[in-house]
Amino acid sequence: PRIVALPGDGIGPEVVASALQVLHAVGDFAVVEHPVGAAAIDRTGQPLPPDTLAACAAADAVLLGAVGTGHQPADPEAPRPEQGVLELRAALGLYANLRPVRALPALAAASPLKPERTKGVDLIVVRELTGGLYFGRRARTADDAYDTCTYTVTEIERVTRVACELASRTGRRARVTSVDKANVLDTSRLWRETVTRVVAREYPHVALDHLLVDTAAMRLVTDPASFDVVLTENMFGDILSDETAAITGSLGLLPSASLPGAPDPDGGIRGGLFEPVHGSAPDIAGRGQASPLGTVLSVALMLRHGLGRPAAADAVEAAVERALDAGLRTPDLGGSATTDDTTRAVLAAL
Amino acid sequence: PRIVALPGDGIGPEVVASALQVLHAVGDFAVVEHPVGAAAIDRTGQPLPPDTLAACAAADAVLLGAVGTGHQPADPEAPRPEQGVLELRAALGLYANLRPVRALPALAAASPLKPERTKGVDLIVVRELTGGLYFGRRARTADDAYDTCTYTVTEIERVTRVACELASRTGRRARVTSVDKANVLDTSRLWRETVTRVVAREYPHVALDHLLVDTAAMRLVTDPASFDVVLTENMFGDILSDETAAITGSLGLLPSASLPGAPDPDGGIRGGLFEPVHGSAPDIAGRGQASPLGTVLSVALMLRHGLGRPAAADAVEAAVERALDAGLRTPDLGGSATTDDTTRAVLAAL
Ligand SMILES: CC(C)[C@H](C(=O)O)[C@@H](O)C(=O)O
Ligand SMILES: CC(C)[C@H](C(=O)O)[C@@H](O)C(=O)O
Repeated sequence: PRIVALPGDGIGPEVVASALQVLHAVGDFAVVEHPVGAAAIDRTGQPLPPDTLAACAAADAVLLGAVGTGHQPADPEAPRPEQGVLELRAALGLYANLRPVRALPALAAASPLKPERTKGVDLIVVRELTGGLYFGRRARTADDAYDTCTYTVTEIERVTRVACELASRTGRRARVTSVDKANVLDTSRLWRETVTRVVAREYPHVALDHLLVDTAAMRLVTDPASFDVVLTENMFGDILSDETAAITGSLGLLPSASLPGAPDPDGGIRGGLFEPVHGSAPDIAGRGQASPLGTVLSVALMLRHGLGRPAAADAVEAAVERALDAGLRTPDLGGSATTDDTTRAVLAAL
Repeated sequence: PRIVALPGDGIGPEVVASALQVLHAVGDFAVVEHPVGAAAIDRTGQPLPPDTLAACAAADAVLLGAVGTGHQPADPEAPRPEQGVLELRAALGLYANLRPVRALPALAAASPLKPERTKGVDLIVVRELTGGLYFGRRARTADDAYDTCTYTVTEIERVTRVACELASRTGRRARVTSVDKANVLDTSRLWRETVTRVVAREYPHVALDHLLVDTAAMRLVTDPASFDVVLTENMFGDILSDETAAITGSLGLLPSASLPGAPDPDGGIRGGLFEPVHGSAPDIAGRGQASPLGTVLSVALMLRHGLGRPAAADAVEAAVERALDAGLRTPDLGGSATTDDTTRAVLAAL
């Protein structure tokens, strides 16, 4: 299988280098690197150079580090690093972003929540990734600005199916919580009706409920263990999935998958993009201090959902858990393990 | 002073009745009640009847219980209870929504967060309340829908001033964190530039920083004590303020003020609306189980910010704290005090 690695900006190159070592330890993969984000703007003037896009489109899976410089360019017309990721999502049709979050007992100390609140947390946020405010018409003048949130029934239907497929898997609870703001927004009303119809017609065994986004933001803090699969639109998903990342104290460990369809339990899906949930963290870039675990676990998701190698995925995840159980602690978990220490610990536990 | 009470739906009437007893205990006020929300639709067919609006427009302050039935009407053309609140906000020009959140030591047990994380939390969320996605153009067909997020420089400037005035008050830390999604949205770029300009020109003593909304959603869980005044637009504010309400475990206790300007430290501001942060909780309505404390503390905000009676406001807040310190616990805090028990305890502590 052909894999494209996009190290990107900030700590991206460090964590991708580490994760690729783990990938090479579990199999034979051809990996080619390409620039994206600020790194690509520096080299080519564009956040997503045509060569990078062509390579990603031809790849079986893409591994991304992180993108962004942490500050907004003074010139509003200047190319933005983040634009590279948005274009990539649109061009590859990566409409379903999956973020699994589990409370690992080894990390209870790092969580801001009391242990009894995170006990049993095992949820997946499914975020629609190529619609909504992120891709709607927009404009600004000196006096005002607007952004447009648009959704079609087709866009809502397909991401609903991804959520339902995941909820139906062995080990999950066949429960989907759809999050919207149907008491205010027209797109949310369309969202709620469409999700309701798809589940009723195609997934009658799935228990569906609806939460308003403000209530969801609250319940994710007070009762995160009550969720199985959380399904939501792009902007709400951006906010809620980062909130979710915070509750278990394991932001540095969280992986994500952005897929052009529902993953097939047996075969994977060609063309997904896998990346850690954390950002480019420019403040600690280049110091060898960043935890590569979110990217290593993104490699596990890539093996499972992108490359159809579930056994290798399980092996990587088990190695990370063993290393943590043995006491490995990166700075974000209150320890002092460097990027290299962490890579070695995971390789040793494999 | 003339006060309009809008009991609204669900537990609204119960908690408003309780809070009005507390109000009458601290002074002489003429209170008239009017229907809003589902209660108003039932009686008049409209969520904000003209009589209710006229009374609110002529009042010195409005006390609101809660609005909503907890389910979406099957007929998309049916009047919605929430529409009554949105029309009221727009008609009264209530562009600044203030939600103060403090961690009370007496409530540490009820908080989902570890005590060391909530220690010292004392923040105010300032949410823009009459712009953005809530009031933009929208439409839907059978196949798609859109909502528009619009902001003008003027709208951003005036709510920035409210945040800066509050941050400059005695007891606050002169720090404003503005939250946006400037790496993606045009409205957020306008927001960031405008906030930056207003603070630099008019409030140079205020320390301003900017957070992306996803990062803010995370940091509100991991480090809520780091915030002083959080300033954000309407939709982000809806989500983040409910998330904030969850962290201290005191949703049932939180008050809010929606104001047509910056409150004057000495005189109050005419025409504000005061309401608890919690919703109409239809599941427990009519049982006398609802905590009235969020509404009682909204009366305190009304006394302070709406009626220019800071001493009476302090007295009400102190009475609630004393009652809690003495062991008063409503069901949301793990106790069994009824609405009436709670009212009596606060009145006794006054
Ligand atoms: C970098 C940014 C555009 C991106 C987003 O908002 O989608 C990031 O926050 C994410 O969640 O992947
Ligand atoms: C009832 C609803 C329209 C309202 C809002 O979204 O503004 C509520 O959630 C609030 O925060 O006051």
